Amino acid sequence: MTYISNEELDNLHHIYRINLINSCSGYKSANLIGTKSSNGIENVAVFSSVTHIGSNPPMLGFFCRPTTVLRNTYENIKSTDYYTINHIYLPILEDAHHTSAKYDSQISEFDKTNLISEYKNEFKAPFVKGAPIQLAMEYVEEYNIKANDTILVIGKIIGLHVNDDLLEDDGFINLSKAQVATINGLDGYAIPGLNKRFDYQRPKL
Amino acid sequence: MTYISNEELDNLHHIYRINLINSCSGYKSANLIGTKSSNGIENVAVFSSVTHIGSNPPMLGFFCRPTTVLRNTYENIKSTDYYTINHIYLPILEDAHHTSAKYDSQISEFDKTNLISEYKNEFKAPFVKGAPIQLAMEYVEEYNIKANDTILVIGKIIGLHVNDDLLEDDGFINLSKAQVATINGLDGYAIPGLNKRFDYQRPKL
Repeated sequence: MTYISNEELDNLHHIYRINLINSCSGYKSANLIGTKSSNGIENVAVFSSVTHIGSNPPMLGFFCRPTTVLRNTYENIKSTDYYTINHIYLPILEDAHHTSAKYDSQISEFDKTNLISEYKNEFKAPFVKGAPIQLAMEYVEEYNIKANDTILVIGKIIGLHVNDDLLEDDGFINLSKAQVATINGLDGYAIPGLNKRFDYQRPKL
Repeated sequence: MTYISNEELDNLHHIYRINLINSCSGYKSANLIGTKSSNGIENVAVFSSVTHIGSNPPMLGFFCRPTTVLRNTYENIKSTDYYTINHIYLPILEDAHHTSAKYDSQISEFDKTNLISEYKNEFKAPFVKGAPIQLAMEYVEEYNIKANDTILVIGKIIGLHVNDDLLEDDGFINLSKAQVATINGLDGYAIPGLNKRFDYQRPKL
């Protein structure tokens, strides 16, 4: 195995380091977060840090950096309270990844890609049309991560749209049936097929 | 599409809800966190919430619930400051998932599965032998998530072991070459193959 020590990590070329550290934690979720600014400009951006926080109440979190373009998403959420989480799947891979480009806040990524915004049930933020899972989210709270000045944004799921054929009898959503993507590092995408579901585990005697 | 509203989410059967909400955020990382208690008992437990926090300094976070058996991991980290993050891959899928069983803190999951602990470079916490990526982690800080009383634990990567053949010239770790797993929901595992890496994206004119 290759071993990279603390000191070596500190001295890596920064491109090498961001590739290495972004891919060393394992596979990541692949989502598009949709928002609308208070003056009506839609935004959609790729995120790989959406994480389960709890089921009851149903809450998800994601991390954003105050110093990058992704701040458009954060600012829109702060000024409107609402956002959508949409799953990236095979047919939109290229356009989804393109939303990582640093567009000015006055430009909508919906206008620069083939991604299409969609409104449902009078929810104020735009969904990504065609996404097999679309979540309507309401801002709950945030935490400033002191160690590196990122922000953890926590939201509550207030509506869940899912393609009928993905939803199994016990509530399990079979992501592989919709060719949902997962992210390896900053720029690698995979489309997994479900390998196995296990039973609930109890201690062995 | 099936639509589940806020009110319907609140009234779901709890097993249905935990399956639904755990699988609605997309694919999750599949890691084993290794710790050792202050009185020398090893622990290893599956986590699906390890998330990239930042590359410089290199930091990862994960969420844990104070009320479940996973508290063994948290308590060991709090009392020793050190832990390991090891990637779940195809050959250890079943044993890795079994660590979700609620064992008493006096019992090591290494004794109840075929997982083998391994010590390297005098690092105090046990790695999982054979895991294609093994991270030596040091506790940095934690945040109490008020919305549902979970804890976000943030740690710094102070050493990184990676199988030579996964590491590409630009620092990218190709997880698919090691049959690294990703988690769908609570109990679904997939072994992705890499689909595509994209270039760095710049705004279109």
